[in-house]
Amino acid sequence: MIPHDRHLKIGSFLFEGLDQIDLTGPFEVLSQIPNSTYSVFGKTTDPVRDIHGLKLTADATLAEAPQLDVLHVPGGFGQEALMEDDEVLDWVRRQALGAHSVFSVCTGALICGAAGLLVGRRATTHWSAFHLLPYFGATPVDERVVVDGNWVFAAGVTAGIDGALRLAAGLRGRRAAERIQLAMQYAPEPPFDSGTPQSAPAEVLEAARVSVAKLTAQREETARRAAKRLGVDLPDTAG
Amino acid sequence: MIPHDRHLKIGSFLFEGLDQIDLTGPFEVLSQIPNSTYSVFGKTTDPVRDIHGLKLTADATLAEAPQLDVLHVPGGFGQEALMEDDEVLDWVRRQALGAHSVFSVCTGALICGAAGLLVGRRATTHWSAFHLLPYFGATPVDERVVVDGNWVFAAGVTAGIDGALRLAAGLRGRRAAERIQLAMQYAPEPPFDSGTPQSAPAEVLEAARVSVAKLTAQREETARRAAKRLGVDLPDTAG
Repeated sequence: MIPHDRHLKIGSFLFEGLDQIDLTGPFEVLSQIPNSTYSVFGKTTDPVRDIHGLKLTADATLAEAPQLDVLHVPGGFGQEALMEDDEVLDWVRRQALGAHSVFSVCTGALICGAAGLLVGRRATTHWSAFHLLPYFGATPVDERVVVDGNWVFAAGVTAGIDGALRLAAGLRGRRAAERIQLAMQYAPEPPFDSGTPQSAPAEVLEAARVSVAKLTAQREETARRAAKRLGVDLPDTAG
Repeated sequence: MIPHDRHLKIGSFLFEGLDQIDLTGPFEVLSQIPNSTYSVFGKTTDPVRDIHGLKLTADATLAEAPQLDVLHVPGGFGQEALMEDDEVLDWVRRQALGAHSVFSVCTGALICGAAGLLVGRRATTHWSAFHLLPYFGATPVDERVVVDGNWVFAAGVTAGIDGALRLAAGLRGRRAAERIQLAMQYAPEPPFDSGTPQSAPAEVLEAARVSVAKLTAQREETARRAAKRLGVDLPDTAG
């Protein structure tokens, strides 16, 4: 926990083609942390579209961001276009190294990985990209939320809500997190048991795999280049 | 279920001071429904801020909206400013009456109620506004998701995700909903058991009640006026 009288600057990285709930799920939690300010930062302050078309706008540019206490990096298919973007990677690296806590959601982990921040870390990401973590020097841990030192990793998409509540409790104590949870009436009742590759019906998993096959292949290419750049020994299974 | 070859127009109502995840949670689900188009409609296409400051922008104005097949009405404290806003109430009423399905999330139910749409319906809303439903002629049902005819009501905030998955299954079948659930890795693991008034620690509930007391009193005033306007007999307990 951080002293309650220390104001926290919390910020999310917004980019074109993110998966919006990677940002908006955690936003709902982190924006209610006592004695904090939450801002959204992007390459520009023009509106961007999430992968399914939601229009979101940053409060300020990356260059305008102060050093954040809590850095939140969401994911989504648009992550792929940033994996060799020096402006973004430098910003994420600089912010992460100066932050009290770093919170990676979904394939935001790949962006952090490309910035060289995952070497030696226990991490998780969306199930479809989980096998890519070793390319960035990380040890994949198949849990919904993984805490490693001052890093919190949430698995895919909606895991960001669970991760954010864990992070909120770590920053301001359990009671603060419980108050936020009650305000957002978070007592989930998923109508089906299809939220993980292990639980989803076989035909559902197969269809999902097929629909992301092209992107997955592209992510593998990119991860291979990142491994080379970072000097990470390629995992045996990755060839 | 609706025939798969019938294209669905899905739309959310965006307004200043909404609780963003009332919109973005369902967006994540409904924007992935096969053979559909999702748009966000607002009074203007200028960006608005959610209650905690997230900047969201509508795709088009209310006047530009076609008749929707699925109307989604989110809530949030900003709902209160719309309870006697004829432009909004007329739009919601007209859209709801022409839609195949109506989806109310959180205190979006109060907006629908003010539009006269809840008379005789079984409904739910955020726990802090649950007692207000009878003012709009509705029967409160204390469940996370309530289905009444072609209406789906989700309780507070994050209940919108569960409600949207139920709605998706109703529109396109269970398999379609399961695919969406897997894509968003929705297998929630709330770290605490504080998501309902029944489960939250007493001090957490008390603090939450205090923090919304002023708004609740104001909502009661407004609901009383609505009841009068709608010709609803005030419930005994409401005086």
